[in-house]
This record gives sequence, C-alpha cells and structure tokens, in this order.
Amino acid sequence: MSRLSLHPHRFFDPLKEVRDIAAELYENVKHLPIISPHGHVDPKLLAENKPFPNPAELIIIPDHYIFRLLYSQGIALESLGVPTVDGTPVEEDPRKIWQIFADHFYLFAGTPTAAWLNYEFAEVFEIPEKLNGENAQQIYDHIRNKLSTPEFLPRALYQKFNIEVLSTTDGAADSLEYHKLLRESGWSGKVVPAFRPDGVVNIAGENWKEEIKALSAAVGEEIHSYKSFIAAIEKRRKFFKEMGATSTDQGVLSPYTHKLSDEEAECIFQRALKGKADAEDQALFTANMLMEMARMSIEDGLVMQIHPGALRNHNDFIFRRFGPDKGCDIPVQTEYTNNLRELLNAYGNDPRLTLIVFTLDETNYARELAPLAGHYPAMKLGPAWWFHDSFQGMVRFREQAMETASIYNTVGFNDDTRAFPSIPARHDLSRRVDCNWLAGLVARHIIDMNEARQMSRALAYDLAKEAYKF
Amino acid sequence: MSRLSLHPHRFFDPLKEVRDIAAELYENVKHLPIISPHGHVDPKLLAENKPFPNPAELIIIPDHYIFRLLYSQGIALESLGVPTVDGTPVEEDPRKIWQIFADHFYLFAGTPTAAWLNYEFAEVFEIPEKLNGENAQQIYDHIRNKLSTPEFLPRALYQKFNIEVLSTTDGAADSLEYHKLLRESGWSGKVVPAFRPDGVVNIAGENWKEEIKALSAAVGEEIHSYKSFIAAIEKRRKFFKEMGATSTDQGVLSPYTHKLSDEEAECIFQRALKGKADAEDQALFTANMLMEMARMSIEDGLVMQIHPGALRNHNDFIFRRFGPDKGCDIPVQTEYTNNLRELLNAYGNDPRLTLIVFTLDETNYARELAPLAGHYPAMKLGPAWWFHDSFQGMVRFREQAMETASIYNTVGFNDDTRAFPSIPARHDLSRRVDCNWLAGLVARHIIDMNEARQMSRALAYDLAKEAYKF
Amino acid sequence: MSRLSLHPHRFFDPLKEVRDIAAELYENVKHLPIISPHGHVDPKLLAENKPFPNPAELIIIPDHYIFRLLYSQGIALESLGVPTVDGTPVEEDPRKIWQIFADHFYLFAGTPTAAWLNYEFAEVFEIPEKLNGENAQQIYDHIRNKLSTPEFLPRALYQKFNIEVLSTTDGAADSLEYHKLLRESGWSGKVVPAFRPDGVVNIAGENWKEEIKALSAAVGEEIHSYKSFIAAIEKRRKFFKEMGATSTDQGVLSPYTHKLSDEEAECIFQRALKGKADAEDQALFTANMLMEMARMSIEDGLVMQIHPGALRNHNDFIFRRFGPDKGCDIPVQTEYTNNLRELLNAYGNDPRLTLIVFTLDETNYARELAPLAGHYPAMKLGPAWWFHDSFQGMVRFREQAMETASIYNTVGFNDDTRAFPSIPARHDLSRRVDCNWLAGLVARHIIDMNEARQMSRALAYDLAKEAYKF
Repeated sequence: MSRLSLHPHRFFDPLKEVRDIAAELYENVKHLPIISPHGHVDPKLLAENKPFPNPAELIIIPDHYIFRLLYSQGIALESLGVPTVDGTPVEEDPRKIWQIFADHFYLFAGTPTAAWLNYEFAEVFEIPEKLNGENAQQIYDHIRNKLSTPEFLPRALYQKFNIEVLSTTDGAADSLEYHKLLRESGWSGKVVPAFRPDGVVNIAGENWKEEIKALSAAVGEEIHSYKSFIAAIEKRRKFFKEMGATSTDQGVLSPYTHKLSDEEAECIFQRALKGKADAEDQALFTANMLMEMARMSIEDGLVMQIHPGALRNHNDFIFRRFGPDKGCDIPVQTEYTNNLRELLNAYGNDPRLTLIVFTLDETNYARELAPLAGHYPAMKLGPAWWFHDSFQGMVRFREQAMETASIYNTVGFNDDTRAFPSIPARHDLSRRVDCNWLAGLVARHIIDMNEARQMSRALAYDLAKEAYKF
Repeated sequence: MSRLSLHPHRFFDPLKEVRDIAAELYENVKHLPIISPHGHVDPKLLAENKPFPNPAELIIIPDHYIFRLLYSQGIALESLGVPTVDGTPVEEDPRKIWQIFADHFYLFAGTPTAAWLNYEFAEVFEIPEKLNGENAQQIYDHIRNKLSTPEFLPRALYQKFNIEVLSTTDGAADSLEYHKLLRESGWSGKVVPAFRPDGVVNIAGENWKEEIKALSAAVGEEIHSYKSFIAAIEKRRKFFKEMGATSTDQGVLSPYTHKLSDEEAECIFQRALKGKADAEDQALFTANMLMEMARMSIEDGLVMQIHPGALRNHNDFIFRRFGPDKGCDIPVQTEYTNNLRELLNAYGNDPRLTLIVFTLDETNYARELAPLAGHYPAMKLGPAWWFHDSFQGMVRFREQAMETASIYNTVGFNDDTRAFPSIPARHDLSRRVDCNWLAGLVARHIIDMNEARQMSRALAYDLAKEAYKF
Repeated sequence: MSRLSLHPHRFFDPLKEVRDIAAELYENVKHLPIISPHGHVDPKLLAENKPFPNPAELIIIPDHYIFRLLYSQGIALESLGVPTVDGTPVEEDPRKIWQIFADHFYLFAGTPTAAWLNYEFAEVFEIPEKLNGENAQQIYDHIRNKLSTPEFLPRALYQKFNIEVLSTTDGAADSLEYHKLLRESGWSGKVVPAFRPDGVVNIAGENWKEEIKALSAAVGEEIHSYKSFIAAIEKRRKFFKEMGATSTDQGVLSPYTHKLSDEEAECIFQRALKGKADAEDQALFTANMLMEMARMSIEDGLVMQIHPGALRNHNDFIFRRFGPDKGCDIPVQTEYTNNLRELLNAYGNDPRLTLIVFTLDETNYARELAPLAGHYPAMKLGPAWWFHDSFQGMVRFREQAMETASIYNTVGFNDDTRAFPSIPARHDLSRRVDCNWLAGLVARHIIDMNEARQMSRALAYDLAKEAYKF
C-alpha cells in the first residue's frame, strides 16, 4: 500500500530559494474564489442537484483525457462503458470499469490527469491510499459512500470549491432551461451561460439542417436566408446576455477571418440550405461569421472567444461508434498573423471589443500571438489550452508569451472542463505553476516581491474577472 | 517608495552552484568593449553631439517596444506624443507623456523592456527609486538635469558605454553625410554604416519610384533598366565600403532565393517602373536580389545579413496615421531549408561569403537554421532577434541551436536598437544570459571552466568582431 | 594538459535534491543490457571481426556529425579523408586527418558529439587527457595500440558494451550474407536486420532501375509490374523475418499516406519503369507504399518505423563529389495530423500493428505526435532523433510529449548510429537524461520514487524490448 498525500510544495521548484517564494505567493492566492469563465459543466447538474451516480460514471465515462489514454494502450472503449451511438453494447457494471481503470492507473504517471485525479482523490474524497488494482474496489466503495452524503451534492461541492462564478457553454438554440431553473431556485451560486454557435455556423456539418431548425424554433421565426440567420444570432445573443452570459465562443479549424458581401454570404447560405455547401463554403462562411461575431460583440458587449486548431473526429471508427468528443480531436498547425488580420484591422483598435484567442499550436505563442496581443487593444491571450493545460504546458505559455505580451494582455485561467469535481484541482495546479513561475523571476531578480504579489493575484483572480466582465 | 537597485546576480540561476560560476564568467567579460555590429542608431546623434531633449523624447517616443505595449492596453499613441503622418495633433507636453508612461510602468514587469529601462535608470541616470506614477515628475526632473550636463552628450555616453564600434543601418541612396562629418571631426569613436537596400528592392512599395529617383541621384545616373539598377547597387556598396561599412542587410518577408535570368529580371523591373509590379513580382525580384547581393558580397567582401519574417504594418489604421515602425510588425512562419537552397548551393560553399541569417520564427532554430549553419561554411546564425532578444528568448536560442550549430557558427550579440542609451543594458543582459547558460553546462559537467571562459569571451566579443570583419 | 575524466554526475541537475535522486535512479539502470533496435552499424564488422583500422578511419571518416561541423568552419572534406565518388583525391595519411580533427576539437564544446567522444575516449579507450592539437599524435598512438589488441575486436567490444541485441538497417535487395555468417558462426551475440525499402520505393531516384534490378535478382523473378513489385516486397519481408528481423523502416520526405487503386499504382509504376516518374509520382507512390507496408505489418507482424522530414543532399556540390550521408541532409517542416490520417484510420485501431513514428520537426511533439500516440492503439513515438539526440533535445522530447502521450506510448531509446564504438556513450547519455528528468518530477512531487524506478527501467530497457518484439 502506498499512502496518498499531496505534498504542500508539489509543482514548486525544488530549490529552496525559489520554493520558499513560490510558497509565500501561493499562500496569498490559494483561498481566492474560483472564477471559471470558460468550461463545459452541464448546468443540469447544479439545477437538479441530485447525487452523483457511481465513481465510474462520475470520473471515467465522461472524461476523454482518461479513456483516450487507456484506449491508446489497447483497452476497448466498450469495456470502459463509454456509450455508443451505433447500438454496440458496452460494459454496464461500474465496478468492472473502475477495476480496469485502477489496473492501468500507472499509465498516467507524470500526466496532468494524474495530478488532477490525485487532488480529487485526496482533497475532495479524502482517500488515504494511491489507487491501484488491488485497492480498486475499496476505493470504489469509499467514493460511492461519499457520493451518497449531502456534502457531495453538486451545489454543496460548488460552495466547498469556493466558486464565485461558473460559465457553461451552450448551443445557439439552447433553451437555457437549467439556467432558468437555477435563477429561479433562489440558490446563491452564480452559473452563467456562454453563447457557442458552432452547430449553426458549421454549414457543411451533417446535422446542420436540424441545428437551423432548432434555431428557427428558438427564435420563433423560420430561417430561410442569411439575413434571417444573422437576425436570429443577434436575437439569441440578446437572450443569452439576459440570462447572464458575458461571453461567446467559437471553435474553428482555422482562425481565418474575412467579411463576405451580403450577396456572397446569402449565396453560400442558400447552397447550405440545399445541402450542397462544401468545405470551401464552410471555411468562407466561418471566416465571415468571425467578422460578424466581432461586430456584434462591439454592439452588445459580449466578450468574444476563439478556440482554433482542432481537427475534430480524426478517427472515423471511433466517431461512428461513439460520436464526438472521444479523445480523437487532434491539433493542426495554425496561423494567426494573416488569418486574424482582417478582423483586427476592422475591430482590433476598438476598445469596446475584447477578443480572447486560444491556441493548440504552441509555436504561435512567441511568434504570432504575443506580438498581436502586445499591440492590439482588443486582443487578449487565453491560457494554455487542453493538451497544454499541464505543468510543462503552462510553463511554456508563461516563458514563451509573457515577455512580449505582458501578463496584462492575458486573462488568467480557464479550467475548460466537463469534469465538475476536477475544477479545484485544475485551478490549484494553475495557481501553483504561476506562483512558481513568478518565484523564479523574483529569485533571478527580474521582478520584486511587490510585483510578484500583484501579478500572482492578477493571474489567479483579477484578470479573469475583469476580462470576462464579471 | 521602492528603491531601484540592480542586483549583481540578476538573471543568474538562483542555485549557488550555477550562480557562482556564472558570476565568475561574467566578471571576465563585463568590461569588454561593446561591439555593436547591427543597429539603428541615427548617426546624426553622434555627428552633431547635441544634448538629448527631454526624457519623453529620449525614451518613450522613439521606442516601439514601449508604446506598443501601452497601446495594447488602450492608451492612444497620440497621448504619448508619437508623431503622426496624417496631421492628427498629438500630445506635446513631455511631462504629460512621461506621467502616462510612469502610471503604467507596472505593465512591463517581467518584459525585457523593464530590464533595459531599469538598467538605464539605475546605471546610466543613477535614479534611486523605481519609477511609478507618484515619483514620475521628480524622476523626469532628475533625467532632464542629467541630460543638460556634458557627461550626457552622445559622444560622452559612447565613451562611457565603452563602445568599440557601432554600425548604423542606412538606405541605399543615403548620402552618409553624418558618417562623413564624424570621420572629419577627428573624434576617436568608430561609427560605420551598413548598406540596406530594402527601399529600392521593394518594387511594389508605395514609395519605390522616389527611392529609385534618390538612388539615381546618388549614383549620378538615371536608373532606367535592371542592368543600370544593379550597377547602381554595386556602386553604392563600393561607396559604403569606402565609408567604413563592413556589412549589408536585407529585411525580407520570406528568405526565398532564386536567380532570375537577365531577361526575366529586366521584364519585372520595367513593370515596376510602370508602377505595375505586383506581389509576385516583388517576391521574385527580392529572391533574385538576395542572389545578387550574395554574389556582390563574394566580390567586395561585405558581410551579408538577412532579417526575414516580419509582416510589416499589420495594422492599417496605425500605419496610415503614424507611418512604419510603430510596433505593429508581426512575425510570420518562415521556411529556410528550401528557400535558402539555391543561394547556398550557388555561394554557400565559398569561404569568401559570410551570410548571417536571423529569424523571428524560433521553430527554425533547431529544425533548419542550426543544421544549415552547422554544415555550410558561409552561413552563420544571427543572435536571438527582436521579440526574442529577451531573457527567455536568448535562453531558447542557446538551448535549441547550439548543440547542432556550435557557438562557433554564431556571431555574438547584436543590440539592433534605435535607443542609444539602452545599448549597454542590452549587451549586459546578453552577456549575463550567455554566462549563465555556460555556467549551467559547467555545473552539469558538459564543458569545463577553460572552455566556458573561452566561449563566454567569444560570445561577448570575439565572434562579433570576427564575423563582421572589424 | 587537461585531464579527461567523466564526472559521475554529468548531465544531472546541479541541485542536490534532484541530483541525488537522478543518481539513485541511474544506479539501477546503468548496468542493464543495451537494446539497440534501430541503427546503421555494418554487420560485416561483427561478421568478420577484424581489428578496426586506425583512429581516423574508426572515428572521423565515417561520422557525418564530426566532419559536417569541421566543414562548416571551412575545413575541406578532402583534407579529412572523406572518400569521393568523383575521383577527386583525398588525404590518405590518417595522422594528418587526426591532427586537423584534434586542432579543431574545441569546436564541439557543448555538442552531443563531444559528449559521445569524451565517453568513448575515457571509457572505451581509457585516454587520460583531453584531446587537443598538442597531444593529438600521442592519443593517436594510444588508440591505435588499443585497436590492435583482442579486447578491441568488434565482437569483444559488443560483449564489453553489454549489448543484448543490435539491429542493423538493410536494403530490400540485401543478401544479408553477413547476418547469415553471424548466425552460422556460433557466436552468442544477437544481430538482426531491419527491412528498409527506400531504394526501391524512391521511383524517381537516379539509381531506381538498378535497385529494381537487384530486387528482381534477390527474389529470382523479374519485376515488371506493380503487382510483381508488391509480391517481391512481401517475399523479402518474409526472408528478413526468417533472418531475425522484427522491424521495417522507411525514410520519407513527408509522412503523407494514401492508398492508390491498383490501376493508379500500376500506371505510376509503369511510368517509373520508363524513367518518367516525376516528383508527384514519387510522393503518391511513397504515400501508397506506407499504406501497403502497414497492411503487410499487420499480416507478418513486423514492427513498422517511419523516419520523415529530412531533405536529403541539400548541398549539390557535396553530393556530387562525396555522395549521400555527408552531413547535408536538412530537416523540413513536417505535418502528421492530416498526413497520417488515412493510414491511422485504416490500421491505427488494429492492435496487431505497431507503428513507430519519428520526427525531425519538434514542433510536432506536443501539437500532433503526442495527441496521436495518446489515442491510437497502434501508434508509438520514436525517441528524439538525429539532431535532437542530444542533452537538450532529449529534454525537450520528454517535456513536450510525455504529459499527453505518457511514456508508455514511447519505445525507449534508439542509438541510430553508424559509429559502433559510440553505442554505449549514446545509451549512457539517454539513460542519464531520462533519470534526471524523472528525478525532477520526483523532486517536484509529481511522481513518487516507486513510479520513477519503474519508469526509468521502462525507458532504459523494457519499452524498447517490448515495442520491437525482442
């Protein structure tokens, strides 16, 4: 048996001269409330506030970070209970799923998933031992027992986690019914939606017609033209804003931006309605919608986010059997300097716009993103994202982008997670990495302690709160 | 109030075992004269040797590193006194400009600009306190008083800075009148020009016709053909060489190299004379001129520099109102292996050529540039440039390029600055980073102290002096 | 004179808290046998077991890492005895060659070549002094004397180096006669071939017709069609497997994969037979052959390796005079996400395939390769390759790829060398770097010592043995 304990100095530099400074800075920010301005938690969870089901359904089945790595080692997703869309039966016994996970938990050594899970196990569930194949069932029982107590209901955890505000991500046609329920419930927690129109923007997508139908229904008007489409988007943004949203988000393959004439846009839109839009139409329409979304943001004040560079559903077999978001979205090289130029020229000098740009292509941190954010008033850099939301990934972001962009053109941390109980683990890791990075600057006499204290607080709390207008 | 003092160990590793070695190495190089083989100081400054005006005009208005970051935070360039080209009035009170800068000086924490400025404030101006909004006017007075003393005349600073040679960068048609005045003045300082023909090579540029007119005037012959253009370039190179130049420089979007036939070149040149050269003509003509400049370098012995990869004037609004070099040149991805192949095959095996290649795309350090420089006798690597002339940027250059290229295929440091009083700060930072990098190698037993001493001296002084033929 | 001694803590972190852990981990792996699953040692060496000739022919003439750097500093390859293919005479006195090398040995300070050579000099040849121009001839004598003793015969060194298995790399038509001799000799060493069909796949290559002729001879059937070509490849793979091969390898400019129809493939093949295949034919044919090789690997169980991204023979002058592999192969940017998609969709979910992918473009470590290997069951990452098989290069690979891929989707170390006596030096460096990387994780409390011990052993021995099916 191996005791599970989180070392107070984890992720800090092992050199005492740096570590002590890091620890002092961390002490000042660790209790700050969590601002979670971008993520994928299901609002239903907090609206209904029902107990979480078993450990497998809580931790493994919804987390593509976990099951993608198990899959890479030859473990079938069916055996992990990942639901299929093609009717293939999957393992239904959560204890068996948990056992497979525990048997292979060693695979995660050194990955951010292990860091998050060990925090979750130790801090949230107070599990005394490291998970392995032998204690798997005991730990299963331990977690299951906790989940049945009132302290582990979603809203209780939200309070325990010290969350000040949590943003979800919601489709353009979403009724936001759970957000409504939350508002009406009188609960003190603040959960807001974010407007993500990808489904209705991806005109070459398989489900686009259904998405448009849903959007038509949501606005109570049939969308038969580009003009009515834009009107619907504006209407929905208004509704989201009324429901508390402060931001929008778009996931795009490329951040190419280009304003089409109304005629061009209409022509492409009509092709899409006939089911004939191709990849080029899609690319142009997306480029145009980025321009439109920026314009609307200037008008309605919603913060604009762009998440480019993921080639979705790289593995056809997995996509057909299990659907999207199953760990097979793979980054591609991304270009920003030319692609964002039209948008930045049109709107980047306007202080009313806040444009937060993310990347999965770290080669852009120093080359393109920091110089752009270090010049245009509207542009800010989103934190290290997805595969880069890790110890080394966050270090690279700080080391490569901050000297040119300055931390004041960044927006703090996003946990970007679907895994609700991992939220404090992710913020804790980010705060540790940032404090340790600043400690390294202090120890090298590049900044002083006053600056470091102000900067660590900014990175942990202030920048996110300000940039996202909470 | 916070005391401004430069820690003797700044930028060194906080681990004593490394720091002590770094300090010992630094001790041996810190007093070496400064070789400044590439930069943008105005020779008029030293030729006229007049007192610098006020702190705002000395430090803020000419430095795009400073005002681009202020602009990114929503501060109008007009309020910083940056001169306009479209007649828009700008702030004329240097005290007000200085106050804005001081109010926002915290934005620079952790950036190389702060490192340079703090050195300048502490070492050059002996300012006892850190700049902030409260002491802004006192510090303004302090600097202004210093500037009115003989010790702060440009030539006195040149001597104080221990500069051995300073190269400026000058257009193809430049009369080099200030270089002439300097030579004739009997002053002992060595200031030499470098030949930069970008203005006359950029055939699709708005001002190209005027540039060609000026070049015609400079050579006393009308340039009406490609042949006469090449003859003019050769003539000007000869003149620059006579005036002390040892190098040329070209800023290009891409380092694509390709020799055109005389007919092709002439044809493009004639299109340009008619004002009809397009982007493709421009690209081909530049590719051809890189070949021609290499040929001429073999003939006249001038060292050839290439600075590729900046997309100039990304922000149209700023360009139209304020002109070029206003902090909105943004790097783009750059390719060297294929692009330089024709030039390197034609001239890269010739020991008479020294070709110094720079990059704004760090992905090339290890992948393309180090293998090329580690093979071709003619090719050397320029130091970490522009956005990468920073603590972490220089570390990345050393760590990514030196194992394959060897330091002996590099050329020491370039300060590349317009900001004359920042020169010693920049060389000091570079020497510290290099000594610290070598100290890390010694502490890991990769090199020994004898090697480190020789290498630190080479990086601080010898390599630049030799490569640039001073 | 400067004593040559290898510090026991070389390449470890100078911080005691990390170094002690690194040393402890290293102690556990340093005596593990060497698995050398990919390299370029000539099997003739061990089959004939003749004494090595002189130091120059042993160390300098075959090592492009060494002579490329000397060449970059203006030293003619002729003066180093590098054999020409155009009849140009070269230096034949090994003492003169050795002297030039020794005079310039300082150039290698801080490069992996110096690390390997110093290990070789100190550990293999027990040379007491650092090599320099003055002791060059003494050290020459010292090595030459050693080489004439039985302890320095190739097989004796193989045993001394504690090699468990050594894979060579062999052309498709190779008779494997030396592998046969080795098997028949009764010697206990295990030397196996690997199947590398580049010569017969490169249909636009100058020697392709001769390669095909040799392949025809090897299979005893004339290859006149794509179909007979594929049959020949399958036959040769079978023969290689019988001779002990467990893997294949392909060096390709791009990892583009695409299955051609039989008609398309045949059509291109016929064009090639007529000497009319162009660059596009070559690219398509290679893309198709990667698909075919994957299919065959699933059928016969040979592990598939791909080494993409080297633009071969960048320097025409060197290629014409000295032939291939002369230090002028230069990496190019490489794309994996789109290029490997067809192959991974066809075969990447099949656990019978092991596909080991290498890169010379480190920008792919975190962006494309780690996410792909962290998802597809068939795909594994090859170690830091060629220019990146260095202290910093290996650190970058670990830091950039492991958090997403997990070490368990990697395959340990490859020495990939032609330089037989450098094998233990290379494995020693790799083991040191890995132990030190793991020690850093332990000291930051990211993994514990049990995990580190298991991981260090996996990286040093187990992963290579398992992945390559030894």
